[in-house]
Amino acid sequence: MTQRELFTPDRLFCPGPTPVPRAVAQAGVDAGSSIYHRSDEFYKVFRRAAELLKPLFGTTESPLILASSGTGAMEAAVVNLTAPGDAVVVVKAGKFGERWEKLTKAYECKVEVIAVAAGKAVSPADVLAAVERQKDTRAVLLQANETSTGVAMPVALVARELRSKGYKGLIIVDAISSLGAHVMRQDEWDVDAVVAGSQKGFGLPPGLAFVSLTKKAWGQLSRRPRFYFDLERERKGQAEGRSAWTPASTLVFSLREALEQIDAIGAEGFAAHHAQLARAARAAAKALKLELFAGAAPSDALTVFSVPAAVDGQKLVKRLRQRFGMFFAGGQDELKGKIVRFAHLGFVSRFDLIDGLAALEFALHEEGYPLSLGSGVAAAMQSLASTP
Amino acid sequence: MTQRELFTPDRLFCPGPTPVPRAVAQAGVDAGSSIYHRSDEFYKVFRRAAELLKPLFGTTESPLILASSGTGAMEAAVVNLTAPGDAVVVVKAGKFGERWEKLTKAYECKVEVIAVAAGKAVSPADVLAAVERQKDTRAVLLQANETSTGVAMPVALVARELRSKGYKGLIIVDAISSLGAHVMRQDEWDVDAVVAGSQKGFGLPPGLAFVSLTKKAWGQLSRRPRFYFDLERERKGQAEGRSAWTPASTLVFSLREALEQIDAIGAEGFAAHHAQLARAARAAAKALKLELFAGAAPSDALTVFSVPAAVDGQKLVKRLRQRFGMFFAGGQDELKGKIVRFAHLGFVSRFDLIDGLAALEFALHEEGYPLSLGSGVAAAMQSLASTP
Repeated sequence: MTQRELFTPDRLFCPGPTPVPRAVAQAGVDAGSSIYHRSDEFYKVFRRAAELLKPLFGTTESPLILASSGTGAMEAAVVNLTAPGDAVVVVKAGKFGERWEKLTKAYECKVEVIAVAAGKAVSPADVLAAVERQKDTRAVLLQANETSTGVAMPVALVARELRSKGYKGLIIVDAISSLGAHVMRQDEWDVDAVVAGSQKGFGLPPGLAFVSLTKKAWGQLSRRPRFYFDLERERKGQAEGRSAWTPASTLVFSLREALEQIDAIGAEGFAAHHAQLARAARAAAKALKLELFAGAAPSDALTVFSVPAAVDGQKLVKRLRQRFGMFFAGGQDELKGKIVRFAHLGFVSRFDLIDGLAALEFALHEEGYPLSLGSGVAAAMQSLASTP
Repeated sequence: MTQRELFTPDRLFCPGPTPVPRAVAQAGVDAGSSIYHRSDEFYKVFRRAAELLKPLFGTTESPLILASSGTGAMEAAVVNLTAPGDAVVVVKAGKFGERWEKLTKAYECKVEVIAVAAGKAVSPADVLAAVERQKDTRAVLLQANETSTGVAMPVALVARELRSKGYKGLIIVDAISSLGAHVMRQDEWDVDAVVAGSQKGFGLPPGLAFVSLTKKAWGQLSRRPRFYFDLERERKGQAEGRSAWTPASTLVFSLREALEQIDAIGAEGFAAHHAQLARAARAAAKALKLELFAGAAPSDALTVFSVPAAVDGQKLVKRLRQRFGMFFAGGQDELKGKIVRFAHLGFVSRFDLIDGLAALEFALHEEGYPLSLGSGVAAAMQSLASTP
């Protein structure tokens, strides 16, 4: 055991999984010893969790809780809302837009892709144009956050543009890395389906995913073979707290605990906290002369820094891990080595943020990047000083 | 629940209790469910803990493990090593020197007090002079750290001065808030008794205290009534892992875990880590123009700042608690409101230190103290940059 290992246990600053608060982890531990998932006690916890999810999605319908990763929930949206041959429009601005593309193609949709440059947000006008080119568009699929680039997509504006110009098809949003950090108003914006995952803004380990359909969307289920992700079947049982298949029961207990905590300050307050941290992280970037990769449309869930030319991005991420026990994320595919992704998503305090920035500065310094140690942290602190 | 409470759980920056690492707490939890303290399994754990204590005290004798607070261990030293009417010299440089005075007086010693100004260390020559004034001095009692002022006493120098000038009496050191942070070489320095407590450098909750006697000191036990703190009785049993009275068994399991962790980097490495953090804290003080109360002899276990004249020290400590969930300690008695005590003792990382300093800056800023937010943290980071 080294000095580092002795004093600094591993910490997560990657865009999922995010840190799990002790009480949230403990709720799962306590439950694990004695919970039968076909019992009134469990149903009650499950229903309470579903109830508390509503304000985070901004809907009066109960979001469904699935035992799957976020990708499973994306698939659930596709298999329940599209049929083979359906025309769909996919916004592809990175790895997760690509996932919508792969999924809809795997399920034999006719896919029109709007390719957006990495680091940029989609323009609502471009989505409208794609939908107008393809009059029978059944669904538009996009991300709320493109996690691979740290871009926040203008979901509300896209929905408004489409609806105001008469688009009657579905809008399906992957909000996996966004929910909690950004406000979602599913009903108000008329977004038919929203997908999320436990290991992001919820402060849970991976294992649960959520799909939320509006009242209107429930009336538009498609016909195609489906079984594990048959949402109509889930909806009936979950109204009573019974999932169709075995639920990830300890995680449901943890979820209830996390949601009670979020509820104490409200979905708006939770998002406002993320906005404060994100502003501070951006202030640090400026002070450190680090370019924000998602320059014009940065997410409040994570801040993505372009790696300076003289620095090896992969070594930097490795150093953060080995030297300080901190898991940052690098870039994927063609962004490998070019960006560092620093998440401040879920149960992250201003002090966690400061620690992450301090570690980033130490690591950059050790990699030879010229900086005045502490200047990024100081800028973040000055940004945070005016916040509650 | 407020935003603060949601994101920033309470944290300890007071000079004891100190943060308890998760694995250390867990060792106590795991033990708690099934441990009988009169069993071979328990004796083995107890003996291992006693063995691992030796390098921290710098002795070949097994330190004794008591179920008491540190004050209990101080009393144990007094009742086992002094008799009524014995002449003793007490170094009083603060609240804990005063405790030696009260204890030895309660036990009817003839007490000569060396009064040292708050914030100053005792001079070895002054101790020698006191001992020479009182030729039959049975014991000299002092602190290794005066926790109330943040002063590190020159124990090695005091012992060397006394021994080199022919002092044959006892030297008894309260190292409660020092052990772990500062190297102790009990055998080499010929310090007869050293006292310590679990909730300081050991990263444990309160409840255990330690008394270590050298071989020579074991031959000089005094005669007076004693029972709970009868060290000879403890010594016999503890050689086999059996404490005379019911041991605080879960804490002993936690102790073993903490000591195994410290052992992985060694007592010297553990102290070196404290020295790094203390240097960084002092660098921050300088950048923030905060006076070090223990100017010339600051401890590596805690840094004590004089509260600037325009700031209300009690409000400052309260603000750190209410606003950031951080427990700093204020001054006691006549130092009330005049100092802030910031401990970096035990299992404290560079990032913990940065968090504490950041919080102190935020709180000072909110109390109207003029500072450039982040400048203290930056100075600390620059100090830490060159450390492993």
